[in-house]
Amino acid sequence: MATTHLLTPPRLHHPSPSPSPAARLRATASLAHPLLPSRPRLSALHSHSPSPRHHRLRRTMSVRSSLIDPDGGALVELVAPPDRLPALRAEADALPRVRLAPVDLQWAHVLAEGWASPLRGFMREAEYLQSLHFNCIRLPDGGLVNMSLPIVLAIGDAEKERIGDKPDVALEGPDGGVVAILRRVEIYPHNKEERIARIWGTTAPGLPYVDEAIASAGNWLIGGDLEVLEPIKYNDGLDHYRLSPRQLRNEFDKRGADAVFAFQLRNPVHNGHALLMNDTRRRLLEMGYKNPILLLHPLGGFTKADDVPLPVRMEQHSKVLEDGVLDPETTIVSIFPSPMHYAGPTEVQWHAKARINAGANFYIVGRDPAGMGHPTEKRDLYNPDHGKKVLSMAPGLEKLNILPFKVAAYDTVAKKMAFFDPSRSQDFLFISGTKMRTFAKNGENPPDGFMCPGGWKVLVDYYNSLQAEEVTPVPV
Amino acid sequence: MATTHLLTPPRLHHPSPSPSPAARLRATASLAHPLLPSRPRLSALHSHSPSPRHHRLRRTMSVRSSLIDPDGGALVELVAPPDRLPALRAEADALPRVRLAPVDLQWAHVLAEGWASPLRGFMREAEYLQSLHFNCIRLPDGGLVNMSLPIVLAIGDAEKERIGDKPDVALEGPDGGVVAILRRVEIYPHNKEERIARIWGTTAPGLPYVDEAIASAGNWLIGGDLEVLEPIKYNDGLDHYRLSPRQLRNEFDKRGADAVFAFQLRNPVHNGHALLMNDTRRRLLEMGYKNPILLLHPLGGFTKADDVPLPVRMEQHSKVLEDGVLDPETTIVSIFPSPMHYAGPTEVQWHAKARINAGANFYIVGRDPAGMGHPTEKRDLYNPDHGKKVLSMAPGLEKLNILPFKVAAYDTVAKKMAFFDPSRSQDFLFISGTKMRTFAKNGENPPDGFMCPGGWKVLVDYYNSLQAEEVTPVPV
Repeated sequence: MATTHLLTPPRLHHPSPSPSPAARLRATASLAHPLLPSRPRLSALHSHSPSPRHHRLRRTMSVRSSLIDPDGGALVELVAPPDRLPALRAEADALPRVRLAPVDLQWAHVLAEGWASPLRGFMREAEYLQSLHFNCIRLPDGGLVNMSLPIVLAIGDAEKERIGDKPDVALEGPDGGVVAILRRVEIYPHNKEERIARIWGTTAPGLPYVDEAIASAGNWLIGGDLEVLEPIKYNDGLDHYRLSPRQLRNEFDKRGADAVFAFQLRNPVHNGHALLMNDTRRRLLEMGYKNPILLLHPLGGFTKADDVPLPVRMEQHSKVLEDGVLDPETTIVSIFPSPMHYAGPTEVQWHAKARINAGANFYIVGRDPAGMGHPTEKRDLYNPDHGKKVLSMAPGLEKLNILPFKVAAYDTVAKKMAFFDPSRSQDFLFISGTKMRTFAKNGENPPDGFMCPGGWKVLVDYYNSLQAEEVTPVPV
Repeated sequence: MATTHLLTPPRLHHPSPSPSPAARLRATASLAHPLLPSRPRLSALHSHSPSPRHHRLRRTMSVRSSLIDPDGGALVELVAPPDRLPALRAEADALPRVRLAPVDLQWAHVLAEGWASPLRGFMREAEYLQSLHFNCIRLPDGGLVNMSLPIVLAIGDAEKERIGDKPDVALEGPDGGVVAILRRVEIYPHNKEERIARIWGTTAPGLPYVDEAIASAGNWLIGGDLEVLEPIKYNDGLDHYRLSPRQLRNEFDKRGADAVFAFQLRNPVHNGHALLMNDTRRRLLEMGYKNPILLLHPLGGFTKADDVPLPVRMEQHSKVLEDGVLDPETTIVSIFPSPMHYAGPTEVQWHAKARINAGANFYIVGRDPAGMGHPTEKRDLYNPDHGKKVLSMAPGLEKLNILPFKVAAYDTVAKKMAFFDPSRSQDFLFISGTKMRTFAKNGENPPDGFMCPGGWKVLVDYYNSLQAEEVTPVPV
């Protein structure tokens, strides 16, 4: 597990033998349709693979990585150099202030480290409209990058009036300290109904992100170029897991990765996930890659109340690596700082796009990614197949290899998690999140081989602690 | 006014002097934003302009037009050749039937004539999802064409069951006659809530198209390749106005158009519109075009109850040309067969895209295009500026020159419609549609110069007939 900052120069590695493996893998993943071509999905690893001569050249030039390019060509990093800090603090003292809510701070973090490259700050209206209507944004060269979620900052009437026509504002964190300066700001109307309808495909009450971050937010959005004073930290004992795209890229280079496959999750890892991740690595090796590295990338920002909290998940993921279910040599566990929208096909594009910026050229997509139940009707909010379909068709994600999730379930004959075999479906047991939670709450064990014992214990302890809280009378 | 079918071979014409005029015009229309590049908007007229040698060659080859290319490169026309009619009728007799509602028939018409090129029929799910999420569809060559409105056909459970796994179905018109065969069909869920939210940005009750064509429609969508038996006619005395994209292209060629500018409308033409259209022609001439032709293109499909009905509008438009407000030599009046969604920034893209297929390379866009009041709140449903902004940024419309509408109002000093001059705003009178309707209903005249007398009389007569109906007792 890479939990330290890795500033050693990238190690060079050999190109994989040919571009065909990615194409072969794509063939199994593509969705057949007359208007859907087989799209160019070759890994940038291949096109950038150094020739022997370049290889020598680059040993001396040293810095250029052979990982997939960030969106827009260069990673956007918005944290000011340390020597600017005193000047920025002095400048901020004279500026109008905008207070960031916790979710806003998470987005500032996302922007600061370049997960949303090429964005340079909270969206101005032209970016917002493109994101909302097209899920992508046009580059100066005419090309498109994917950008399915608007990354915006809301303010109220009073703040708008206080800002007036001043070009710059200071952003302060939830604790009141100045976090960043937003420059050349543009203020435009925040039509919440339209934003919600176009992102979620519903305006039903009870969408977790809407309740948390939109419903009570102001009626204006403020966009601009962000300059962040210092790296954003949460001091929750997990900051060492929060590697930036730059740090991840350095780590992939250091390990000599010739393919990086990302696995986004917001739930505990069970052996079905592990099977899938290990199987993906096996397939990448078969295709000719020499050293595929797994980015196990739990989401660390806002999640809904009944999801397992981040610290518990991180402990559970640690146990999974300790128990040897995943190989620490070829796995990097890190926290993705984005908040969760639960916006299904729209959000999964963001999840994939951000990982390109961190160097991943393969993305594993499951059933109903970023989905949840409809808030007011008894059904899934999204068609569970739409996520992977929309992802495979999304403008701006052509360079990413999409790997659809194979369904894993508990094989009651082999007594382990296995890929579902429809020819003997009666042998398979599907253990939903709800069922898993019920097991853990009741102190029951799931079937042998569902999850490594160390990881399972973390969950049982967590649910026990919840129940203890529930029965403990509130101290007066 | 071109109201006859024009099957003479296209006349060749001279290229305009340089590609720079379009670029110059674009400069005045572009929206400045760091992520919005100056996009390539040169008319295909220029790039296809024949050299002298080609000119000779093409005189003998005769068919190739120099108008802007249709989306996907070729105009898709789905009406079967007449000699196939008996075979198609016989085939249809053996197929499961789906009954088209009036709006469905309008869409079949739109598809049949290639307004939605490169679509070859009602959308299958992959096209539907791309349209819904990205407002554009990928071509086999990897390029994108704009497609902001899903063109879909809904069926109910009973129809789905009757079709079963049969590959083809017969579509019958509202009167029961077979209109088309839909081939290699795909049936997929019709999530109405998601469709409405993503298209309109609201799910509020009272959206006219939703009430007409979605609310009571079936829970499945059926896509496939369309083969239409005969050209679709309405026998309402206006079919001669319904020129197909092919017929319009032939007419533009016949007139030697070197620029075609389209004006979409669903309202009577007043002198402010005329001023704008004439001013646009003047600007195009200044830019070096020799023969810009105006496509005055009223929408002919479904409109909401309080819009002026199509026959009245067509009569009004005739009078405008008769009265010399627009020049018949350089104007073609034709009906655009699409139904109206009233979906603002999403719909205006469809309005523009369809006109590319008819040969238009300039598109005039007004304030709040395809907008309306919010159905349940006292405000515009869309920000009135979003239509032209979204249109200028839309993927797949790069080749179209977008001409933002200048605001015209009644100049009380000059006693005519004029472009609004903010330096003497007190001299201008804005006459809204509601105000115009009130004048006409009350038999009052609008200020001199607001509309030509012949056109105004058509409206007065229409509103008088409405009032007569209102006071006439219903015969028992």
